[in-house]
This record gives sequence, structure tokens and C-alpha cells, in this order.
Amino acid sequence: MAEQQKLTIEGNEAAAYIAHRCNEVIAIYPITPSSAMGEMSDAWSNQGRKNLWGAVPEVIEMQSEAGAAGTVHGALQTGALTTTFTSSQGLLLMIPNMYKIAGELTSTVFHVAARSLAAQGLSIFGDHSDVMAVRQTGFALLSSNSVQEVMDFALIAQSVTLKARIPVIHFFDGFRTSHEVNEAIIPSDDLMRTMLPDALVRAHRKRALTSDAPVLRGTSQNPDVYFQGRESVNPYYDAMPDTVQACFDQFAKLTGRQYHLFEYHGSPDAERLIILMGSGAEAAEETIDHLLSQDEKVGVLKVRLYRPLSATHLIKAIPANVKKIAVLDRTKEPGADGEPLYKDVVTALAEYIGSGGDKFASMPRTVGGRYGLSSKEFTPGMIKAVLDELVKDAPKNHFTIGIHDDLSHTSLEWNEISVDAGDNVTRCMFYGLGSDGTVSANKNSIKIIGEGTDLHAQGYFVYDSKKAGAVTISHLRFGPDPIRSSYLIGQNEAHFIACHQPVFLERYDMLAHAADGAVFLLNSPHSADAVWNDLTKKMQQQIIDKKLSVYVIDAYSVATESGMGRRINTVMQTCFFAISGVLKKDVAIAKIKQAVEKTYGRKGAKIVERNFAAIDAALAHLHKVEIPTEINSASIMQPAVVGDVPEFVRDVTGEIIAGRGDAIPVSFMPNDGTWPLGTAAFEKRNLALEIPVWDEDLCIHCGKCPFVCPHAAIRSKV
Amino acid sequence: MAEQQKLTIEGNEAAAYIAHRCNEVIAIYPITPSSAMGEMSDAWSNQGRKNLWGAVPEVIEMQSEAGAAGTVHGALQTGALTTTFTSSQGLLLMIPNMYKIAGELTSTVFHVAARSLAAQGLSIFGDHSDVMAVRQTGFALLSSNSVQEVMDFALIAQSVTLKARIPVIHFFDGFRTSHEVNEAIIPSDDLMRTMLPDALVRAHRKRALTSDAPVLRGTSQNPDVYFQGRESVNPYYDAMPDTVQACFDQFAKLTGRQYHLFEYHGSPDAERLIILMGSGAEAAEETIDHLLSQDEKVGVLKVRLYRPLSATHLIKAIPANVKKIAVLDRTKEPGADGEPLYKDVVTALAEYIGSGGDKFASMPRTVGGRYGLSSKEFTPGMIKAVLDELVKDAPKNHFTIGIHDDLSHTSLEWNEISVDAGDNVTRCMFYGLGSDGTVSANKNSIKIIGEGTDLHAQGYFVYDSKKAGAVTISHLRFGPDPIRSSYLIGQNEAHFIACHQPVFLERYDMLAHAADGAVFLLNSPHSADAVWNDLTKKMQQQIIDKKLSVYVIDAYSVATESGMGRRINTVMQTCFFAISGVLKKDVAIAKIKQAVEKTYGRKGAKIVERNFAAIDAALAHLHKVEIPTEINSASIMQPAVVGDVPEFVRDVTGEIIAGRGDAIPVSFMPNDGTWPLGTAAFEKRNLALEIPVWDEDLCIHCGKCPFVCPHAAIRSKV
Repeated sequence: MAEQQKLTIEGNEAAAYIAHRCNEVIAIYPITPSSAMGEMSDAWSNQGRKNLWGAVPEVIEMQSEAGAAGTVHGALQTGALTTTFTSSQGLLLMIPNMYKIAGELTSTVFHVAARSLAAQGLSIFGDHSDVMAVRQTGFALLSSNSVQEVMDFALIAQSVTLKARIPVIHFFDGFRTSHEVNEAIIPSDDLMRTMLPDALVRAHRKRALTSDAPVLRGTSQNPDVYFQGRESVNPYYDAMPDTVQACFDQFAKLTGRQYHLFEYHGSPDAERLIILMGSGAEAAEETIDHLLSQDEKVGVLKVRLYRPLSATHLIKAIPANVKKIAVLDRTKEPGADGEPLYKDVVTALAEYIGSGGDKFASMPRTVGGRYGLSSKEFTPGMIKAVLDELVKDAPKNHFTIGIHDDLSHTSLEWNEISVDAGDNVTRCMFYGLGSDGTVSANKNSIKIIGEGTDLHAQGYFVYDSKKAGAVTISHLRFGPDPIRSSYLIGQNEAHFIACHQPVFLERYDMLAHAADGAVFLLNSPHSADAVWNDLTKKMQQQIIDKKLSVYVIDAYSVATESGMGRRINTVMQTCFFAISGVLKKDVAIAKIKQAVEKTYGRKGAKIVERNFAAIDAALAHLHKVEIPTEINSASIMQPAVVGDVPEFVRDVTGEIIAGRGDAIPVSFMPNDGTWPLGTAAFEKRNLALEIPVWDEDLCIHCGKCPFVCPHAAIRSKV
Repeated sequence: MAEQQKLTIEGNEAAAYIAHRCNEVIAIYPITPSSAMGEMSDAWSNQGRKNLWGAVPEVIEMQSEAGAAGTVHGALQTGALTTTFTSSQGLLLMIPNMYKIAGELTSTVFHVAARSLAAQGLSIFGDHSDVMAVRQTGFALLSSNSVQEVMDFALIAQSVTLKARIPVIHFFDGFRTSHEVNEAIIPSDDLMRTMLPDALVRAHRKRALTSDAPVLRGTSQNPDVYFQGRESVNPYYDAMPDTVQACFDQFAKLTGRQYHLFEYHGSPDAERLIILMGSGAEAAEETIDHLLSQDEKVGVLKVRLYRPLSATHLIKAIPANVKKIAVLDRTKEPGADGEPLYKDVVTALAEYIGSGGDKFASMPRTVGGRYGLSSKEFTPGMIKAVLDELVKDAPKNHFTIGIHDDLSHTSLEWNEISVDAGDNVTRCMFYGLGSDGTVSANKNSIKIIGEGTDLHAQGYFVYDSKKAGAVTISHLRFGPDPIRSSYLIGQNEAHFIACHQPVFLERYDMLAHAADGAVFLLNSPHSADAVWNDLTKKMQQQIIDKKLSVYVIDAYSVATESGMGRRINTVMQTCFFAISGVLKKDVAIAKIKQAVEKTYGRKGAKIVERNFAAIDAALAHLHKVEIPTEINSASIMQPAVVGDVPEFVRDVTGEIIAGRGDAIPVSFMPNDGTWPLGTAAFEKRNLALEIPVWDEDLCIHCGKCPFVCPHAAIRSKV
């Protein structure tokens, strides 16, 4: 096996790494959550980073994704290995070119961080609505479920497309996988060359349009021959599944990582089965393992090659004892009477049974459901609820899981479960302010642990769409085994919780996430003696009940005194390593300092010294809080919205602001995306460390202040 | 019932008529075969034609269909009744806006002349690839199958969308329906007002964005609430099928024309069923009637409301005795393992049976097939072949019908049948040259017959994609019953055949279409005595064997002498009426003259007089040819390509030129759309009445001649 390097990176970087290494032309247009792939490729080419064949890929930014797709089509016709990255509406703009690229049997891979489509509202988050909207174009669709798979499938897709001459959409869940930090073993250049032999590249080149051997491509075809032309590609699509499996097998020989078109995990005599694709399959696999330990006859089938869909392989992969199947789609097609993967599975089963297939005693009862739209959490509790539903004689069909649908009553009820309770994974949560450095520090911590130790590490970052100045919650997991929990840290699960901003104390129920005996780190201007009295009644009770250890540091003071200004990230990171127990304290501090040198070294010794000072000062100013046996606070959390609020603001906007949007039932949501105005008046974000006061004596009436107030709290009157 | 006017028009005009009458804003961008809808709307608005409410609709041409869709979205948000027309890639460019228009529950109708998508080649012809590519957007899809249905469904769609708040794609087959001339009863304004009550229009207006009652529409929604928002529209989609049926029923009360979501036609105890949508359903209905007369237990189910798909209504519409079903899709989704309508039907059946439905003794064996891609003919013979296949124990699945697939062996064999042999339909074919006026004259003839008599009339025009200067074959049918033959006139079926260009004699096997005893009209410079010797051996044999009556006229001479120059259309049209027997000769001539006055009257009396002269001269110069009892010709048809042609040109290009492209098997077609160059050298179109000869003495070496030669037969050398 070829030697391979392990990195701790985001899914986007994993895809971009392979794409940049295996292509000559990269046409881009940025769209969340795929932008990082294009940005990194652009940066790498600017740095002169070369591809496998010693050339620097040409990165071309176009005016839109429609232009990017046209550029891809054109570059491919010159024989250049060409790729692009996109998401959501960006992919929609590529559709016309995609039909032509596929129709001309052109080898290319589009890497897609799959994202919702704007309908009743825009969302930048992840689901399969975009890739499902191109499933009819003739592109293959290959789904990867984790950062490692993104890395592996990016390469396999490139190999497959050159062999099979069918273009490939390689997709992974936007944010959940594109922005998750996890480990990825990077294939060596030798390995990549083995997967992409020169003969395939030369064959691709040979299909170029060239004046040396002119041909006509892109003719007009009339009713007499178009139909025949359209059927002439069938052998390529028929052969594709075996070609993909052959690439999977070749890859397995080279790396030890074996994949299958449809990958079953579960009891060999499973009676209940979940079929799905994308990151949710990781959570499903975890959940199945948990249920197997309770002797449940259950399993999960992961769909990797969604198009071309090989019904034969699909049926083969379903255990013979299966009696009930739930097919989960991460998309919604209003009016379709069933989502696409569900219909595909039902059709495959019906065809198999209808043509005399006798693997199953009878046709498995198959139902379909929607989950995880727009990065809605998909947790072990939900997966168990789906499997529990299958126990029923007549399981609900066309269900939803993960929401409360009090309108059409599609939703299944569920209870959260912890699938690895009592195991050896350490879970840590950090409440930071957007742009306060918390996320960067945590990414740094994950690298320290993931790349510097034998531990496996995972990081996921929940951004508020208000971005800068809003809460950002980091979810970090560390443990001795690979981490595939593709969902957030749940209630009572976190071993470490850090509150980087004192104001969050009155805003978020952070300690609901704390496991018994967890460590709580609080940035507070109050001393260890005084801070107890600053906590709400509920927090005090949680700390006592869950026997939490509480540490306090005045991070702003430490940062200011170390010359770091208001950058508290190094201070808080130091405290995390000092008290979380993930690494030995001395080892950890040494590694933080190494990381500081690596990150800031080129910015000058002064910055490095300030960081070192902050690290040392952090350790000196970190104090454990003595926990009384009784609560003494009467304070309660601030409501999210205050004053005389309209019903809608109370029930919807306010709940969203309070971080309880997940619990809003369907009937409360505006069905056509129409929202009332003026709701900003009810949200007091209370973020500022200092509040400005107008001094009439000093005011020169320049009129600039109204321009900088986004909430129109300052108005200009003439 | 409201009084209604009957017109003989194209499908496009039927849709445009309603659209222009029922909207305030019409955003357009031209694309074949939908362009006429936009052009007519534009012309009508320029003429000041008003909509139902007395306003002239604003027609806005944008830079592309993407812009048109954005304009529609924007105009709708102002509360304007808004529509657009498009096809193919044009519809693809509208996709991003379509998700938003549907997501915001906005009432609008897009009229789509459904067309192929460019893949291995571009095609301007009709199938359902474009509308199938938007089936996931949340738009409803309503299929109309004939010109009358286009008229009716355009109005019904407008009514439904205002009631149901779901936007509608109203589609009909490109060319086959968009360009077919047939009868349509035009709903009166009163009828339209009844279907579109002011209250609905006001409700639409009230949903406008207005500063008088400001709201926010088009928010960003995060993972906490997007999923719930997406499910909030379910009640609208659930209610839509019943709303559509209610509109159908209301329309039936007003007009007597009753439609259903899924419309069954056939034996009440049918055992074999075809399910499909679009113009092919007309041919299927004809064929079923034919087979019913032979006591076959067969039927056809026409899908009218494809999205939202009501499985309940679908199952209800399938007769209980059905044992085998063929679902026919007019689209291909490479790699999908089954086309969309097929998967929908299989899923509906499997769900019904799986949840205990007991209408059928057992689950009907269901297979899927593709037909009619890009206006490939779909004939009674093919329909019968599909039904015959269903007789087998294990009918072929994923089949094709209408082509010879010697590559993947998907195709069913078929024999052409005549479903109305011996009936009272008159079928006429006209071979004209693109832009020689044949089509216009024929459209005129259809109007004369369809609007001026009790006869029903249909016209369809097969254009070569070379357009001007290439052959255009007109297929006209007249008869006492409505004509629903959605396919060309077949072999041995035509009662009248006209050859408007002498050169076609040596190029096309026109008389293969002639029925026994048919009339053959030939434009020839030869006299009635001499023309026999000018025919090929085969033609002579056909004329004798089929007992044809042959008439000859030197139309170019008659036209020239009447001052019509080379415009022979009036001359040939006169001859048609004189000898076809469709109308009494005197009546017909009077009507042609009326039509001439109507058409050319405003261009001045001189033109009208010339036409009258041509009509009279035509009658004087039309001669019947005495048919000998024996053939005397040795000449044979010219091969389409001559000389030492490469294999590909002989087998593919040459066959296409010869008009035998339909018979080219799949394996002969380039699978990636790559064609050899230089093939124009082998096609001698032989169209010119005069051939230029270069006179060196006169040449001033201006160099202009190479520019005007599209075939580079004249080259410029410096």
C-alpha cells in the first residue's frame, strides 16, 4: 500500500485538494457552502502549486455559475482535464451545459457541497435538493458521507469519469461535511497516478476538438435520428456501475478502504432497514451499532452511486430477511407523491418481485420519509424513531422526521438517545461570538489533537446567519476511534463547555448540554469568589445537580494585559487544554505554543511573544470556583424578546432568536415565505461591551451616525 | 352554455389567445417551438388588443429566459397577472426562479411547447425532456394533448392557479401540438370571466408586495426553521388535485367538454393498459378504438395533471381487471433505471397494494418504455406493438418503440397499421419547397374547410431543419369527425398527393403514401402528354398499380404569366380544390378568392387581381394525364449521395438526406454527437432553377462570391 499522510481538514479542502491535483482548468464562481473549494484552488494556483503532471491549474472565475459551466464545457472540448465546484442555485445554472457535457460523453467531475434551494425562503444550509434537481441530466451522482470519503471519492470519481466517459457529480452534504473538520488520509501522488493512468488522460485528450483532426460536435438532429442518438449512450450507462465498483476495488487494494455501490451495515438477518445517502448515513451507522448491541435486527444501506442506479446491485445489497424498509430522502419535491430515492427503491423492488425474483419471502413493505432539510439535525434518536415506526404493521408513509408537523401530521415523534453513552469520546462545546476567534482556536485545537496524537478528532461549527457578532457554537469530539457522529452534541452529552462571552449566561441554556461531572469554563469579569452569584438560578441548580467543575477566567483582562487587545481566543484555548483533560496539560501547552509559532511566526516575533505571554497569563489567572451546596440566585434567563410583542414575534421570531427555532411547529411558519416587518425592534442583542451615548455639546451634526446604524435606532431629521 | 366561436388555428395560437386575454404582464424570450406565442402576444399588444379587464397586456422581451423568469417573478410580486412562454433550454434557465415562485405560493401559468433538450445533439423538436426537468420545482404540470385542449387547459390552468395558489406549467407537445393546425372552440369572454372571477384576481392582487402594507418576502431561513417552512405548503399540494377536478367540472358545465385528472378510454374490463400523456394519447385513443372494434380488452389512461400527482385518483382511474400496464414516457433520463412517469405509476401501484388495496386481483405487471423522443413518430402500429408486448408473460421492460435499437436491444418491433382504413377521412400530402408558399396555402385551405364547412380539419407540416430551400411536407386531413391522428399520413394512406417541385420526382418516393385510387398532382414543365415519360419506373408502376389519377400543371409558367413571379402557391391551391374533391369545385374556388381578398386586400387591388388571374389560369392549365397500361420508363430515383462516398456518409448522412433517417439503427449513430466534416460535398440539393456559370471576362475580382457560397464551392485565392 502506498504511504499516505493524515490531515485534519474540512470536507471542502479534501475535495479541493484532489480536484486541484487532478485537473488543468478549474472554472469557478463562489456560492456557499462550496466557495472554499474555489478559493483554495485559486490560492494554490496563485502560489504556483502544481497538479500531478507538473502544471499549475488555470483557475478562472466567471460571472456566474452559468458561465463557469460553459467554461467547463469549452475547456473539456479542448481536451483539458477540467472541474468546477458549486452548490444550490449555482448547480441549477449549470443544467443546460450539463445535458450537453453528458450527451457528448465527456469526462469531468463537478464537486458539489449539496445545499437547499431557495423556495419559501433562501437557505445556505445543506440537503440534497440541488443534486436531485440534476439527476435527469445524464451525469452520474456519487455521494460521499464524511471528510475521508470526500477525499477518496473525489479521486475515485476522477478515475471513473475518465474510464466510463460519464461525467460525475461528486456531492457531499453542505456544511455538515463541507465544513466539518475531521481526519482525512491524503492519497499520495503515486496512488493518484495509479488511479489516473496516462492512457486515460491521453484518451480524454484525443477526444478534443482540434483543427489537426477536425470533427463536428454539437449538431442539430431531427426527429428522424435524435431518438436513436439518445439511445446510443446506453452501453456506457449500463457499464458504469461495474466500472465504479472496479475503481472502488482498485482503491481498496491501494489504501485498504473498501467501498461499495450500495453498502450495507447491520445485522445479517436484519428485518428492518433504512436506506439513505449522505452524511446522515454516518449517524445511521452509529445508531445501528448501538441497536445491534441491543440485539435489534436492523441495518442501514448506504447509497453511494445514485446515478446510474443499478437496481441489480441495490437488490443484492438488501439482506434477504428484510421485511420493512424506510427510504430517507434529504429533499422535498412538492407534489411528487414521494421523494426520488424512495421511488427508485420501490421501483427496483417492484420490478424484482414482478419479474419473479425470490430473494424475499414477500415484497418488503417500503415507506419513504424526508429528513434533514437544510441541515436540520438528524440524530440517533430520529433514526431509532424511524426504525421503531417500521415495527408497526402499517408504518406511516411519506413521513417527516426531525420536525413537529402539526399541520399535515407527517412527522414521526422521537426521543433523543445517546448512542455512545459511557464510551470514551470526549465532547466539548464552545459558545463564542462570531469573529471573536473561537472557531479558529478550536480548529487549531482539533489539528493539535488530530494530527499530533493518536486520538481522532471532529469539529463542527454552528454559525448564526447573522455571522459577525452573533453566537457561534463549536462542537468538538475527540476519541480513540474514528468519529462519525454527523450531528451536534446533544443534551447532557458535553464533557466540557466553554462560555467565551459573559453575556451568553443570560441568553442560552448552555448547561443543558453538560454531562454529569462535566467541566464548565466561563469567561467572566467576576472573580472565582464572586462569579457564583452572577449565575442564574437554573445554572446554579444544573451545576449542583450535574456535579460540574466550574472554572473562571477574566479573559478580556488577560488578553488586554498581554497586549492581545480583545482577542481572547488564545487565552480561552489555553484554559481548555489546561482543564479539559483531553491532552496532558504540559504537552498541550507546548503544542499550543508550537501552533502559535507556526501561525504567527511570519508576522513577527512580537506577536508570537504576546501570544506566549497570554498563554502563561491564562494559566495564572484561571481559577476553579468553589461550588456551594445550595443555590442562592433568583435571576432567570432573559427572554429573547421583550416588551409588548406581537403574537408572531412571540411565537416565531422570538423563538428563533432564543435558539429554540427547531421546536417551532409547521403551522406557525408562514407558508409563502411572507414575514412581518419591524421585528428587529424586539431583539436586544446586547453584545456591546460599551454603549455609546450621544453628547449634544460635541455633535457637529455631520449626519453620519444614522448611516452606520443598521436598526435605524438613530434617525436623521432635517 | 355560453356561445363559443370555432377557429382553425395552431396550438401556439390557442395558448397565446388565452394567455393574452387573461394576463397583464407577459415576459418573453423566443425559443422554438414556443416563439409564436410570444410573437403573437407582442403583435396583439402592439395592435392594442385588450385583455378581459380592458387593459393592453404589457409584453416585455428580456435578454434570455432567465431574465423572462425573473421578470415574471417580479411582476407577480406586484400583483400583476403574469405569464410567459418557453421551451427546452429556455425552461431550464427559468428553474431557479421557479422554485421561488412555487415556494411563495404564487399564481401563474407558464405555457410550454415541450421540446427536447440538447444533449448528443440539439433538436428543436418535441418531447417531454424539458418539462420533466422541472417536475421537482413545485410547479403543477398540466398536459394538454390537442389544439382544443391547449385552448381549454390554458384557461383552466389560469383558473386553477388563482384558486390553488400553485403555479402551473401548462404544456403540450412541441410542433406536434404547437404547430398543428386544428379546430379550437374559443371560449367567450363571459365564459372566461366565469372561470376567473374577480374575487380570485383581487386575492392575487392582495398578495402583492406594496409599501402600503409592507411585508418581508424572501427571507433567509436557517436549519432551525427551513424544514418546517418547506412542509407548510403541503395542504396546498394536497388540495390541488381536487381543485383541478372542480375546475374541469365547472368548465364542463360551461362548455360540455369534460376532462379528468386521469382519463380512461377503452374497454371497461380492459386487461392491458397504456398510460401516457401528451399528443401521443390522441393516437392511442384512436388505436384503442380500432382494437376495441376487434374485441381486444385494452385501454389507455391519459395523464392530465402530472404534478401534483394524485395516486388515489390514478389508481381509481385504472380498470380493476387490468393485468398488464405499459407506462410510456416521452423522455429519457440516462442512468435513471426507468423514466419518471413509469416510476410514479409503479410507486402508486406498489403503495396501493402494499397498504392492502384490493381493487386488483394482483399487482398489475407494469413495464415502462420510451417513445417519440424529439417528435419521433408515434403511430397506431407502435401503440399496437406495445399492447401486443403486454400479451407476453414477461413483457420487455425499459423498452423503446419507434426505433431500431440494434445496440442495447431495447426496441420493440412494430408493423404500421391503419386504424381508420375505409373510413371517411380525406388525407392529403403536399411536397413543397421551404418558403415556396406551400405551407401558407395549405393553412389557408384548412381554414377554408375547417371554418367554412361542417368538416373537421387538421394540418401538420414537416419542416426540414434546413428550412428555406428544403423540402416541406404538408399533411392535411379532413373529415366529418374531429381529427385526433397525432402522427403523419402513412404509407398507402393519402388520397391526394401534390408535388409542387418537379425536382422531387427524382428524390422522394412520394407515391408510396398514395392510397389506391388517389389523386396525384404534379407541377411540371412537361405537358400532359409528355409528363409520363418524365416519371421514374417505380412511379409509373405505382400509378398503374394503385390506379391513381394524375394531373399536371406547369405552375411556374402560370404564375409567371399571371404576374405572380415564382409564387406558385395560389396556382397549386386552386388545383388542389379543383381535383381533390374535398369541397365542391365552385364553392372552393369562391372561397379561395374570398381568402385572397382577405389576405392581400390591404396590399392593393393589383395583387388581388393577379391572384384571381392565377386562379383562373390554373383551372385552364390543369390537365389530366392519360395513364398507359404499361410502364415505359427506365429511370430510377437519384441516390441521395453520389460518387465515392465514405461509409458513414453512405449509411448515415446519405440516408438522412434521402429522408430515410427514421430507419437508421442506433448502432450507426455517433454516441457522443461527433460527426465527420466535409459531408456537404456529397449532397447535391439540385434546387436551383438556374445554375450560375463564371464568366472570366466579366469578373472584376471583387471577391464577394465566396462569401455567399455556404458550401465553399467557390473559394477565394490570393
